Amino acid sequence: MPPFSRVAVGLPQDTIKPDALKAGLAEFISTLIFVFAGQGSGMAFSKLTDNGSNTPAGLVAAALAHGFGLFVGVSVGANISGGHVNPAVTFGAFLGGNISLLHGILYWIAQLLGSTVACLLLKFCTNGMTTSAFALSTGVGVWNAFVLEIVMTFGLVYTVYATALDPKKGSVGTIAPLAIGLIVAANILAGGAFDGASMNPAVSFGPALVSWDWTNHWVYWAGPLIGGGLAGVIYELIFVSRSHEPLPSTDY
Amino acid sequence: MPPFSRVAVGLPQDTIKPDALKAGLAEFISTLIFVFAGQGSGMAFSKLTDNGSNTPAGLVAAALAHGFGLFVGVSVGANISGGHVNPAVTFGAFLGGNISLLHGILYWIAQLLGSTVACLLLKFCTNGMTTSAFALSTGVGVWNAFVLEIVMTFGLVYTVYATALDPKKGSVGTIAPLAIGLIVAANILAGGAFDGASMNPAVSFGPALVSWDWTNHWVYWAGPLIGGGLAGVIYELIFVSRSHEPLPSTDY
Amino acid sequence: MPPFSRVAVGLPQDTIKPDALKAGLAEFISTLIFVFAGQGSGMAFSKLTDNGSNTPAGLVAAALAHGFGLFVGVSVGANISGGHVNPAVTFGAFLGGNISLLHGILYWIAQLLGSTVACLLLKFCTNGMTTSAFALSTGVGVWNAFVLEIVMTFGLVYTVYATALDPKKGSVGTIAPLAIGLIVAANILAGGAFDGASMNPAVSFGPALVSWDWTNHWVYWAGPLIGGGLAGVIYELIFVSRSHEPLPSTDY
Amino acid sequence: MPPFSRVAVGLPQDTIKPDALKAGLAEFISTLIFVFAGQGSGMAFSKLTDNGSNTPAGLVAAALAHGFGLFVGVSVGANISGGHVNPAVTFGAFLGGNISLLHGILYWIAQLLGSTVACLLLKFCTNGMTTSAFALSTGVGVWNAFVLEIVMTFGLVYTVYATALDPKKGSVGTIAPLAIGLIVAANILAGGAFDGASMNPAVSFGPALVSWDWTNHWVYWAGPLIGGGLAGVIYELIFVSRSHEPLPSTDY
Repeated sequence: MPPFSRVAVGLPQDTIKPDALKAGLAEFISTLIFVFAGQGSGMAFSKLTDNGSNTPAGLVAAALAHGFGLFVGVSVGANISGGHVNPAVTFGAFLGGNISLLHGILYWIAQLLGSTVACLLLKFCTNGMTTSAFALSTGVGVWNAFVLEIVMTFGLVYTVYATALDPKKGSVGTIAPLAIGLIVAANILAGGAFDGASMNPAVSFGPALVSWDWTNHWVYWAGPLIGGGLAGVIYELIFVSRSHEPLPSTDY
Repeated sequence: MPPFSRVAVGLPQDTIKPDALKAGLAEFISTLIFVFAGQGSGMAFSKLTDNGSNTPAGLVAAALAHGFGLFVGVSVGANISGGHVNPAVTFGAFLGGNISLLHGILYWIAQLLGSTVACLLLKFCTNGMTTSAFALSTGVGVWNAFVLEIVMTFGLVYTVYATALDPKKGSVGTIAPLAIGLIVAANILAGGAFDGASMNPAVSFGPALVSWDWTNHWVYWAGPLIGGGLAGVIYELIFVSRSHEPLPSTDY
Repeated sequence: MPPFSRVAVGLPQDTIKPDALKAGLAEFISTLIFVFAGQGSGMAFSKLTDNGSNTPAGLVAAALAHGFGLFVGVSVGANISGGHVNPAVTFGAFLGGNISLLHGILYWIAQLLGSTVACLLLKFCTNGMTTSAFALSTGVGVWNAFVLEIVMTFGLVYTVYATALDPKKGSVGTIAPLAIGLIVAANILAGGAFDGASMNPAVSFGPALVSWDWTNHWVYWAGPLIGGGLAGVIYELIFVSRSHEPLPSTDY
Repeated sequence: MPPFSRVAVGLPQDTIKPDALKAGLAEFISTLIFVFAGQGSGMAFSKLTDNGSNTPAGLVAAALAHGFGLFVGVSVGANISGGHVNPAVTFGAFLGGNISLLHGILYWIAQLLGSTVACLLLKFCTNGMTTSAFALSTGVGVWNAFVLEIVMTFGLVYTVYATALDPKKGSVGTIAPLAIGLIVAANILAGGAFDGASMNPAVSFGPALVSWDWTNHWVYWAGPLIGGGLAGVIYELIFVSRSHEPLPSTDY
């Protein structure tokens, strides 16, 4: 069963069944694995540089930790939950009609919980270091960050649709988890210097909760949900919808 | 349908049909995603180092941002437009007979527009930072850069042909988008220190337009188009053409 | 035959047969290749920085050397031994019923031997440099490291199960070796700054033996075995077990 | 047709036919692309650091340039020449009976020529910079480097056999070019600080010829050929040979 299968996320039935609970558990574990590596890499940077300010080498480390971690999170969840690992992806999938409301809420809870547990584990393993909340860099306004999150998350959820949810994805589906992980890595190399480049409300929620720092936290929900929702609607309407028409009989 | 399919780019018909408009939109979005990450990584470097001069860590960041971003741009466009994301690729595909003139022009417009919108968005998100145009390093002459762009783009378009357009590509087609993205990353690690390593007129056009700096801009068109065109003609003539002959009946 | 096949590791028969000896040799070579690159990258850092303390760039180098090296070690062993390359993976596979006790012991011996020979070769090739044993960073307690190894190895072995051992893995199986390698890279970017991020008793054993430094060595056995064992049991019970029921006849 | 196919390299016939010339041209282009990026990354480091001594960030840049470049070189050659891109791979394939002597010599000439042309192009594009020959680091003896090259090239050619030449490779074959590229990247992160980590006589030959520096050059031939030859013989004898026996009819 390919990643992000419509069957796996239980589109038609709007009730929570055992498979849905397994899917929720899979989202919880995938998000935990992803956030542990991603947020942990930021704490490793703080450890190695004595809380020095970020550098290009630090940005590369953060990008690879998040990119590789998300690649794995999506891969391991693909056949159980579809591997969303991100409330913005779930929201985009919901708007495009690829997951039901009830299942979507279950996914959100699992993702937020996974991120929180990852941050608590990191706090213990690092002997009490701070899990820094996402924040705006000097000179970056809240509306700059808002648009930045919209644009980057649009790219991420568009990638999810084109490589994983599109029924015509073909052999691109095999590398879908890698594309989903590496668009996040690429965007962190750009946006990470400006607002941390979250693209994922769960990624921002855990650190904010554990360090109890909610400054500008809404940006990291509103931006990704708008960007991800836009991608879901646009891709579904323009690139998927017409494929429901009968195709001429070709063999591709 | 595999990446860069001859069907997808509508070879036989030389008219713009709805699918061609969708393909153009896909090129626009793919180029936007790619340039946003690539050019954004350069602006992140400027932000983190206070406009310091490039370093090996900065080159790694630029290479990964462009390589991962192009991998994703090609992946998400593969089934809709063939995932060119580059006027030099479209030109090489045109010379090799894999896209019609009219569709090629549509692709070029979409690619240049995507790059420009990416740069405008970056300008806003970074609160007005400069989107630096590509430029020659000290000690590098314009003809050095010209040949450099030819050689690097030859490698890129040769990769597109061998892994994506060649009808005999087989299982290599599955990893084609990754090969296309990573040859650009590898070439940036070499050429990035000398002329920025564009290999793509759209990548150079957006920053030049938005920062209105056209110094030596022709190099970033002439080099990639010549290199990409050469690759298209050579690959098609030598490695593809004979495959049109009837093959002995083997099962590969 | 896919990676980590149940057939390859000889589940039903509990005797050592020629194929088992081949599998043992494959584990030996895979572990040697992996540890040579991983441990060697640490020695390269010492060489280049004159035994300077670790930096973000050094962490990236270590993460990529281990991640790429393990990806290759798993790939080359996949069709012969299943590509465990790690006593914690073998232990998790044993608890989940995917390898017999006798074969598991054979694998352990081969893995420990491969790591030791890699370290001896590194000692010779570097003209006698130290193969540093894994150690806790300043401020990190032994129980912090213990939990850190548990969490990270849980993620690793969960990845092995979800992408390679799960009979329903589908096309995710093609990228399984990459996911297995890159979760280690991601975790090193997080945990490497705190306890070296071993996740693999063989990886810690070779350097400890060759440099004869056993300080806190038990942590690098207990943590990975508990984390890997937990992942094996949990995945097998929750996500695999129900798949033994007859499935409705669908074509995925 | 999969990478490194026995058919592609013309095993049975020992005459040069048109397809063999095409295969030679493909080896020439693949090696040119690979060496241009790899050697070019070293020159970029010299440019950016004003010939400073190597650093961990520089090692990462060199590893990625060679790893990504070789991945692409193998991918683009896979269906035409088998994508050897390395005289040591061709030698290992010859000893294992996977390429004829005459074809092997043709491949060697093409590979050495490709590397030389890459270095000449780099010299022009960088306005006359030196293409530094491979050299031993301070404190590394010639026999240390000799064994280092043997071990690392053994790993490389073993990877070629296990993922590409083995008839039982299965889905691992899809990611073979990536595994082949990334074992070189991993080994450079280890061995690059000691002897440059060539693993490939063609990679060392071009820079030596163009900069006319033959100090210890024999090490970069003898080491890789012995290591690659060993891998070819061992893999073919132990892991492939028995597969020629009739297999019991299983469906894997």
